[in-house]
Amino acid sequence: MNNNQSIRVFAPATVANVACGFDVLGFAIEQPGDEVILRPNKEGKVIVKQITGDGGKLSLDPTQNTAGVSILKMLEALSSNQGFDIELHKKIGLGSGLGSSASSSVAAAYALNILLGNPFKTNELLPFTMEAERIACGSAHADNVAPSLMGGFVLIRSYAPLDVVRIPHPEGLHCTVIHPSIELRTEDSRKALPQMIELKKAVKQWGNIGGLISGLFMNDFSLIGKSLEDIIAEPYRAKLIPGFYEMKNAAMEASALGCSISGSGPSVFALCKDEKTAIESGRKMKEIMDQMGIASNIYTSPINHSGPQIRE
Amino acid sequence: MNNNQSIRVFAPATVANVACGFDVLGFAIEQPGDEVILRPNKEGKVIVKQITGDGGKLSLDPTQNTAGVSILKMLEALSSNQGFDIELHKKIGLGSGLGSSASSSVAAAYALNILLGNPFKTNELLPFTMEAERIACGSAHADNVAPSLMGGFVLIRSYAPLDVVRIPHPEGLHCTVIHPSIELRTEDSRKALPQMIELKKAVKQWGNIGGLISGLFMNDFSLIGKSLEDIIAEPYRAKLIPGFYEMKNAAMEASALGCSISGSGPSVFALCKDEKTAIESGRKMKEIMDQMGIASNIYTSPINHSGPQIRE
Repeated sequence: MNNNQSIRVFAPATVANVACGFDVLGFAIEQPGDEVILRPNKEGKVIVKQITGDGGKLSLDPTQNTAGVSILKMLEALSSNQGFDIELHKKIGLGSGLGSSASSSVAAAYALNILLGNPFKTNELLPFTMEAERIACGSAHADNVAPSLMGGFVLIRSYAPLDVVRIPHPEGLHCTVIHPSIELRTEDSRKALPQMIELKKAVKQWGNIGGLISGLFMNDFSLIGKSLEDIIAEPYRAKLIPGFYEMKNAAMEASALGCSISGSGPSVFALCKDEKTAIESGRKMKEIMDQMGIASNIYTSPINHSGPQIRE
Repeated sequence: MNNNQSIRVFAPATVANVACGFDVLGFAIEQPGDEVILRPNKEGKVIVKQITGDGGKLSLDPTQNTAGVSILKMLEALSSNQGFDIELHKKIGLGSGLGSSASSSVAAAYALNILLGNPFKTNELLPFTMEAERIACGSAHADNVAPSLMGGFVLIRSYAPLDVVRIPHPEGLHCTVIHPSIELRTEDSRKALPQMIELKKAVKQWGNIGGLISGLFMNDFSLIGKSLEDIIAEPYRAKLIPGFYEMKNAAMEASALGCSISGSGPSVFALCKDEKTAIESGRKMKEIMDQMGIASNIYTSPINHSGPQIRE
């Protein structure tokens, strides 16, 4: 390793749950994404030098910061006592439901792996980034870190043992996401959910996840659209998002295939068969937020296939 | 229609649930299957003339017999007052968990449709056969009738509206089913299940159904095997099947991909990557039943693709 070398890595935001795939499905989008600049230091410690874009909310303590945790866990696994300076540039809103914490930890892990000469395969970085998620939201979930790290659509088939499956999707599939400027803490949003659910509702949900995955494999936009239904989490979490059903109706009227809550919200995503429909769905959702006097950002893109990327 | 014409139709037995796909997945096997002989009569009524293979247990009243019900429902839909004589030859054990009632209703519906000159497309027969299931087991479930009618692997994505999806599978995939000679009533087996389940168990189950469907599309035997896990119904229903876990262990030791309860039991199925493994898995399961002094039948075949067939 060249001791003066530094690296800047971008890792994409992600849409987890994807309506019917609560805790097991996610996909990456092109923008936004966090950036991490990692540089070896001589202090033999992991130091968070700078964080931008977080409004001062994130801790500079590396054990309390997802970028720091994934790096600490990797060094621990390698029994390494090397030190690194971290600069973290947040582009994804905190508590947005777009996998903000996941993106930081993925960018950091990917960057460190390259600086160390790739001791891990990309998918072997997943457990470290999941540990970072545990710090951020209380559980080591993988439905944001896996798609941010691997790109594309990802199914978390199992957590113990960890088993992730990359799912194909039809060309043309686009996503539009609206991030209203309200903050929801993932923990609060998880608490809104019941611990027990009706078996018959679970059956309906697993019919839909079967349908969504089949539709993605078969390039069947109609089947994808019909399957994008969430009767488990959305009814509870929608109450925490002002104007959710109005936005959903607006997206569906603009011919989106389906529309639901991104992760634990408040961002709302719509999947669409092409870019034009995605742009129009986003515009219609933004109109609702504008009418309600809530500022919002719109991100429209194809599904992101590359995952993390080195930036100059 | 030639008024003297009669037709004999075979419809295959089916394995419903398929471990993780409770109430939404099923597939057809080559053997056994019920046969219906249908013949126009001059009485203008639907008459069940003869039933064999049921040990005298099934009703000759066409409104209480699944073959009769699907025919009555079809004639009603067509506002027809034609009469038909039904001969029903049961080859699938009653209460076996192999879709015995479904097979009879599918054979009858398929036969009538041909005699009437195909007023319905094959998949349009599904609602009539589901009505027959309501008579047989108290709910209009589709996870036996759909694969018996359509052949192959079938996902019931949704019941309202009804939406079924045919899923491909790897060549070579074989199934072995053991039917121990104990009778379980579907209704009793359904009552063994709780109405509420833990959300975290549901999440595990829908990870597996996503994995199973992905594995079927990707011809990935390993992924299929890992996904063939049922933490919802199997733990409750296994108690009703003597020697279940011993049979499952025996099949897994014989390199089956997975093994679980067929439908609501007592039949037990194992999916295998080839015929040889399927035969060996079946032999090992039968050994367990033999040791326990329980008579049993074994059926081993590839997945059935043809669904109902006309027999001479």
